[in-house]
Amino acid sequence: MKTPIIITNFKTYSSSLGKKAIELAKVHEKVSRETGVSFAVAVNACDISAVSREVSIPVFAQHIDPAGLGGFTGQMPPEAVQSAGAVGTLLNHSESRLRLDILEQAVILAKKNSLKICICANTPESGQAVSAFAPDFVAVEPPELIGGDISVTSADPEIITKSVEKITESQVLVGAGIKNGADVKKAIELGAAGVLLASGVTKAENPEEVLRDLASGVS
Amino acid sequence: MKTPIIITNFKTYSSSLGKKAIELAKVHEKVSRETGVSFAVAVNACDISAVSREVSIPVFAQHIDPAGLGGFTGQMPPEAVQSAGAVGTLLNHSESRLRLDILEQAVILAKKNSLKICICANTPESGQAVSAFAPDFVAVEPPELIGGDISVTSADPEIITKSVEKITESQVLVGAGIKNGADVKKAIELGAAGVLLASGVTKAENPEEVLRDLASGVS
Amino acid sequence: MKTPIIITNFKTYSSSLGKKAIELAKVHEKVSRETGVSFAVAVNACDISAVSREVSIPVFAQHIDPAGLGGFTGQMPPEAVQSAGAVGTLLNHSESRLRLDILEQAVILAKKNSLKICICANTPESGQAVSAFAPDFVAVEPPELIGGDISVTSADPEIITKSVEKITESQVLVGAGIKNGADVKKAIELGAAGVLLASGVTKAENPEEVLRDLASGVS
Amino acid sequence: MKTPIIITNFKTYSSSLGKKAIELAKVHEKVSRETGVSFAVAVNACDISAVSREVSIPVFAQHIDPAGLGGFTGQMPPEAVQSAGAVGTLLNHSESRLRLDILEQAVILAKKNSLKICICANTPESGQAVSAFAPDFVAVEPPELIGGDISVTSADPEIITKSVEKITESQVLVGAGIKNGADVKKAIELGAAGVLLASGVTKAENPEEVLRDLASGVS
Repeated sequence: MKTPIIITNFKTYSSSLGKKAIELAKVHEKVSRETGVSFAVAVNACDISAVSREVSIPVFAQHIDPAGLGGFTGQMPPEAVQSAGAVGTLLNHSESRLRLDILEQAVILAKKNSLKICICANTPESGQAVSAFAPDFVAVEPPELIGGDISVTSADPEIITKSVEKITESQVLVGAGIKNGADVKKAIELGAAGVLLASGVTKAENPEEVLRDLASGVS
Repeated sequence: MKTPIIITNFKTYSSSLGKKAIELAKVHEKVSRETGVSFAVAVNACDISAVSREVSIPVFAQHIDPAGLGGFTGQMPPEAVQSAGAVGTLLNHSESRLRLDILEQAVILAKKNSLKICICANTPESGQAVSAFAPDFVAVEPPELIGGDISVTSADPEIITKSVEKITESQVLVGAGIKNGADVKKAIELGAAGVLLASGVTKAENPEEVLRDLASGVS
Repeated sequence: MKTPIIITNFKTYSSSLGKKAIELAKVHEKVSRETGVSFAVAVNACDISAVSREVSIPVFAQHIDPAGLGGFTGQMPPEAVQSAGAVGTLLNHSESRLRLDILEQAVILAKKNSLKICICANTPESGQAVSAFAPDFVAVEPPELIGGDISVTSADPEIITKSVEKITESQVLVGAGIKNGADVKKAIELGAAGVLLASGVTKAENPEEVLRDLASGVS
Repeated sequence: MKTPIIITNFKTYSSSLGKKAIELAKVHEKVSRETGVSFAVAVNACDISAVSREVSIPVFAQHIDPAGLGGFTGQMPPEAVQSAGAVGTLLNHSESRLRLDILEQAVILAKKNSLKICICANTPESGQAVSAFAPDFVAVEPPELIGGDISVTSADPEIITKSVEKITESQVLVGAGIKNGADVKKAIELGAAGVLLASGVTKAENPEEVLRDLASGVS
């Protein structure tokens, strides 16, 4: 997966769920194609198959469970998201935190199924912790800044430098409050391999404009 | 939803996930149409949209979270399964147990979104407990019999009579080990409004044959 | 256990933990003896043995786990709280919510060990739900009022009448914002068998005065 | 805390709960005094105060929650175990696994309260993960060997060498199936700072004999 990368977490916003998820993913694909910048989208499980059919940029699940093929009602095994078209998954997002042993097991199963893995963590220390499982990406996001107006790159750039220093075996993404190209630029300058963001795109009046601006931060 | 009803829980068996989910759902639809018996299927979240497009029998989710439209990464709000085509959901299956307060909240949100609700419980007592939230169905399934060879109707028919007696505001389904028409017949005779089953169908060499046999139990 | 009863939940306030727990329990015992009103205290697990040794009013645990004698590290089996001197336990408090099946199992084990059981619930409906397990008490406490200044008896008396109506097999306690004798009186008039409270006593400047006032509500 | 150290986890065995916990802790103290080997005991929360009063070897809690002084019903804040006499705590034992963010928060609070911390992990990788939080000890215990007859030192010595290699900021303890002095000796030779064990002592017919044997492994 080419880096720097910009991953948009669609969460379950009305503007990025169901049919809207397909539309918004297409805008990502368009901007990616036109700017040459690497974008990925993380969509609700219900939307993975439809979105994957419609776009060629990487589609991530937002979560998987340490489950497999068999008796797992209401669980999300890597096989399910993969057969639906996902090429990767977020794990341990602040809105879906996992027990440490469950997280380790989920990573093992995701790797067996060749899914790219992005584990979220709320501090550089917990980012370092999860990097022990050697995921492709560790996304460090201070929860108090998620969904807010101040970017982590402005509010606390040391979080990024500390994360980059501590996390040596995975690529570091940063998130929380990321909204524009300047934020992306700053994150990359400080050593990040990209950003993970959500409301900055999903709640934008003009997502295409925002995505182009974000892309401009990747020189 | 017409009763007696036979709900097949597809879980995440290789025989009932992805494309196989669509095929198996079609077999259910065929048997339902030909026998006039009411069938529904509960599929993995990734499969809801594709299965819903392909069949006209009711499609259930296997689980929802007490989430809504907004910042809910990796969560499954009723809006998501409904916009994907589900008309109902299982809740609190033994493979996805919920905290009591979370269950109550999920039921409230499911109702707001007009989803049919089938709450699972492992004993008549916990079945009675969840019936306080007035779901459409309460499915009582002794976990020790789930996936096994002995049907709850044979192993412990008193579980059914006790459930029917205690659960007065919802319709009672029974499950665990249900495999054939005789099991269905017995369940209905004891007062159940139908059955919830999984491996008896999903692991069958000839699911259509099994479904016809199950349907024969509904006189 | 004589009713009406006033149960004080000591939580982990600095004024009701460790040595302070013993002192505060003694004040309860004194007021109980002098007024003839039934009081009980629910203390942190670390304090059960010391408090039980020092007072003769009923001492409750604040929580137990569905564990037993054996390999249960960090779990709280009924045997442990009982051998430490507790005669009962709270369960499913809003600060220690349980999965429904875990709650059922905990109740079964508590009964086997002859512990009095008070299950907390946040609505009349969930109160009705847990009453299916036939605990001695169901304490209905709207979480939004817990720790607040407005008593449930003033803010929403219908919660009490509805709870009393729906919960027929257990005695109903009410809680959240209870602070004085008038609140207790109102609760009893509406059909409750007592109250469960915390900060009204633990944060009081003069707990003895507050306890006497509460007792005055029991005519 | 002097190392090598032998920590006995009392769990909730009938032989190490309540009064039996005090007796067994005294045997540990006796053997520690007579052999000069460092021992500690991790006891059920209900027993911390009584055991701490009776012995002078270090007493650990088996678990704490990320709670503090205040509204935490049924939770175990570090302040509670400390005021009861504990000088340290186990965390994330396989019988009390924690969410990663909860674990981090519990460690931060434990440190603020000057508790020694021993985090358990089931693999060298998860051991490395938790060492990011810089606890005093990381105890690596393969869950499949816990409570069994084969020691981790015999069954899979590479787990120890790998753990010692990966965990550089905390001291490494090993556990699962440890029963005698030879197991302790092997663990130390492979780089561990001690062992964490339970049933080998708590279920022994003659615990004193076993403890002396274990001590003999520390040369």
